[in-house]
Amino acid sequence: MAAADWDGYLIAPNATGDGVTRQILGTDHEGNTQTIRVIEERPLTIYLNSQEIVTAMTIGDYPEYLAVGFLRNQGMLNPSETITGISYDNELETIVVRTETQTNYEEKLKKKTRTSGCAVGTVFGDMMEGLEDLKLPSQSVKTSWLYTLASRINRTPSLYLEAGAIHGTVLCEQDRPLVYMEDVGRHNAVDKIAGWMMRNDVSGGDKILYTTGRLTSEMVIKTAQMGIPVLASRSGFTAWGVEIAEQVGMTLIGRMKGKRFQCLSGSERLDFDADLTTVQDDPKSAGRKGAEHG
Amino acid sequence: MAAADWDGYLIAPNATGDGVTRQILGTDHEGNTQTIRVIEERPLTIYLNSQEIVTAMTIGDYPEYLAVGFLRNQGMLNPSETITGISYDNELETIVVRTETQTNYEEKLKKKTRTSGCAVGTVFGDMMEGLEDLKLPSQSVKTSWLYTLASRINRTPSLYLEAGAIHGTVLCEQDRPLVYMEDVGRHNAVDKIAGWMMRNDVSGGDKILYTTGRLTSEMVIKTAQMGIPVLASRSGFTAWGVEIAEQVGMTLIGRMKGKRFQCLSGSERLDFDADLTTVQDDPKSAGRKGAEHG
Repeated sequence: MAAADWDGYLIAPNATGDGVTRQILGTDHEGNTQTIRVIEERPLTIYLNSQEIVTAMTIGDYPEYLAVGFLRNQGMLNPSETITGISYDNELETIVVRTETQTNYEEKLKKKTRTSGCAVGTVFGDMMEGLEDLKLPSQSVKTSWLYTLASRINRTPSLYLEAGAIHGTVLCEQDRPLVYMEDVGRHNAVDKIAGWMMRNDVSGGDKILYTTGRLTSEMVIKTAQMGIPVLASRSGFTAWGVEIAEQVGMTLIGRMKGKRFQCLSGSERLDFDADLTTVQDDPKSAGRKGAEHG
Repeated sequence: MAAADWDGYLIAPNATGDGVTRQILGTDHEGNTQTIRVIEERPLTIYLNSQEIVTAMTIGDYPEYLAVGFLRNQGMLNPSETITGISYDNELETIVVRTETQTNYEEKLKKKTRTSGCAVGTVFGDMMEGLEDLKLPSQSVKTSWLYTLASRINRTPSLYLEAGAIHGTVLCEQDRPLVYMEDVGRHNAVDKIAGWMMRNDVSGGDKILYTTGRLTSEMVIKTAQMGIPVLASRSGFTAWGVEIAEQVGMTLIGRMKGKRFQCLSGSERLDFDADLTTVQDDPKSAGRKGAEHG
């Protein structure tokens, strides 16, 4: 299990926090004035062609990946769709994704809003819609990969270690973490990875997704939409997340702490090759700001 | 600082997990089959009169408080509005809140959806809208209250301690935790408290809100909408959350661990009366599933 910092990232976290954190004057428990580093949080309104879709709260890095990944994970943008342009306006806090043809989603939305008047339920309905026929590729997972991934990711300098109050999600291949995204918004980190994959024509079938967050239904659905058959986390499960994982054939591993983990879906695809006596405990820093993952 | 279990709750957590958790068969890191307790997560579609508003993911307790509190915190339901009925359908997973008069929000929504075709942005815009003129009552906060609250809350048997993967929010008065709500959904716990307050005619001016989650803009806005002038958390801040807290005159305390905390807004209202030598460390259990707050 490699303990040294992993430097094979295609995108590593912005650990210095430049542009995505701010120094704020505060008062500590003894009444002393202190400067503390706080994560930025900005609205980003995402348009698909002329259609306003959502306002996401984000740290503001990679708006292009966030917009494309969000639209992709909501089933509003087909993988085959040609993106003709993306315009990001930093001051207006808007981003417009333009596609060659009017997408299916815009039609659907117009119909829906005429009847029910609101798109929020639609967004959710559409997420589940594409899943019935989805079967993820059956990928064997070595437990030694999982331990190496956790070790490398937990030891990677990150915004989380620097300023807390943030979620992290990492796209991995076997034992190699490749793209490490962080965001204040609940699902922005995973959407940014989906956007990066779509813009770089990277497929999910041979990947593993690692997240600091909980394995809720929405996280499982997004991972399935990305075609990734393995989802791992230090955090816990929800019952519906487990159900959906079983339905789409996803291997779901949670509560990863040191050598311990629980696999609640797809354990028949686990290859228990790791020598548990060599697995290191988590570094103290991994849990240090644990409660700030709320 | 009282270390004993606090039994003065009006609503205590459902620590047994009956009805909101499920036993699931899993495989642990040694390949052994294990039964683990997992939080339920169910969709609940909220209607305001004939208008579908949102589908929330929730553990499913207190659907009435969740619906009313959500609508209230989004500015869709005025405090003065008379609720004529609430119908909850467990099988259809829907809840309808009926009001005497057609609310302002429905009009606004119709106008908006005609132009932009989508309500998601509207929801967000409306949340900020009512805040410009809001000034919370200036309430002095004794640091001894904060330590007693943290100690009592951290020692309260809860779903979080039992099954993890859940958020907790507690309505408090001085050093007394009163209503402790938990939920898998990011802001459901605080919405359920808002609903309880509205249904029981409880005002927020003399209250303190304690949350396990991060102090993001949305959490600060919701607390302000509830008229509560003090928000405290074990977790961290976002810059925009701090800005809004300052704007509305909210005392914002984060990173509460043992005797340590940071106050990033309203420290002039803190009364440092606690004897720090008597403040206990957090129980180990408080941090045990910390990472599952993601």
